Amino acid sequence: MQIALLGGTGDIGEGLALRIARDTDHEVRIGSRETEKAESAAAEYREELDDRGVEATITGHENPEAAAPADLVVAAVPAYYLSDTIEAVSDHLDNSVLVSPAVGMQRDEDGLHYNPPGVGSVTALAVQAAPDDVPVVGAFHNLAAAKLADLDAELNWDVPVVGDDEEAKATVIDLTADLETLRALDAGPLANAPEVESLTPLLINLAANNEDLHDLGVKFW
Amino acid sequence: MQIALLGGTGDIGEGLALRIARDTDHEVRIGSRETEKAESAAAEYREELDDRGVEATITGHENPEAAAPADLVVAAVPAYYLSDTIEAVSDHLDNSVLVSPAVGMQRDEDGLHYNPPGVGSVTALAVQAAPDDVPVVGAFHNLAAAKLADLDAELNWDVPVVGDDEEAKATVIDLTADLETLRALDAGPLANAPEVESLTPLLINLAANNEDLHDLGVKFW
Repeated sequence: MQIALLGGTGDIGEGLALRIARDTDHEVRIGSRETEKAESAAAEYREELDDRGVEATITGHENPEAAAPADLVVAAVPAYYLSDTIEAVSDHLDNSVLVSPAVGMQRDEDGLHYNPPGVGSVTALAVQAAPDDVPVVGAFHNLAAAKLADLDAELNWDVPVVGDDEEAKATVIDLTADLETLRALDAGPLANAPEVESLTPLLINLAANNEDLHDLGVKFW
Repeated sequence: MQIALLGGTGDIGEGLALRIARDTDHEVRIGSRETEKAESAAAEYREELDDRGVEATITGHENPEAAAPADLVVAAVPAYYLSDTIEAVSDHLDNSVLVSPAVGMQRDEDGLHYNPPGVGSVTALAVQAAPDDVPVVGAFHNLAAAKLADLDAELNWDVPVVGDDEEAKATVIDLTADLETLRALDAGPLANAPEVESLTPLLINLAANNEDLHDLGVKFW
């Protein structure tokens, strides 16, 4: 399938692009607000994969163009850009599954805290911003960006996935299961998104308070 | 040291009692609202450890009597009993560290949700109920009770610990580090308790939605 990564030039977009292109046959469409930035990131990712002997189909586009033909659209942008980003591509989401990985957090002197929007979770905010008939799935909330983008890193992390549309959720779970050293777990309906999202500030607080830990992910057993 | 487990007759009290008695030299004082119930649980735990060749000092008491000589008092009771339980022993907490493992949760048709009290976390509720000079530490929130109480289970779980009093927090971290197959992690100040507590409903939701998973704990890396 074709997978668009809106905001795919940075943060977890980079790691998802590299790992999807390396571990699957899906085509990756990097989206950005600026075409040139997206094309440049796509070229960089292709080059990194080429160095590893992987010929990848990664192209760069303005966000709406990235989304238009995609079967799966990942809004890999910070929470405060999420609604605008989704609204900018909303005419291009027909027959797509929309994936929301963003988390709302706030820092104070004690650490990082989960700071969900009024609708209850950032994933719910994506639902609100998306057209009614577009299924939204929450996933990839808890992935440390730098380590995700390091293709030599053995992650051995779990990815909790939430969604109300079972078929859409299965698509995301299957995609994630294809990514090496990641395991997808069904975390239930969208209403369970807050507990998934609030894991991210915990990971960052643990890394900040324990000398030997950084770029943390999570494994459940 | 002497460790009191208020509500030590059930839930995670049992597992903590068995593992502390097996893995350390500390004395364990099981507390309950009924002396007889506490004595009966203590006898049961001693017997289980005796079967494994461990001679343990575990005694049963009414909660205030359990707490009185203890250096560490764990309020191993459900969140809705927490304030009452702490208030019932508050005259006996001099020179003690109080540990709060309780989590507030609410179930609806979608799953289990984190449902913190108005003060922000159940750990903060313990602070509110305890005398001002008693240091409160949040720990053991994310331990699946049945597996914790199974002494044959290799847990390999992490225990995030929060607290504002560094010395009290270090006491709890050291105790936890002595328990086999558990690793204690510093999760920062008490203000970071909500993100630790909300991990518990996520663990339960993941177990409910994934066939092969049950009695889940968590490992960070």
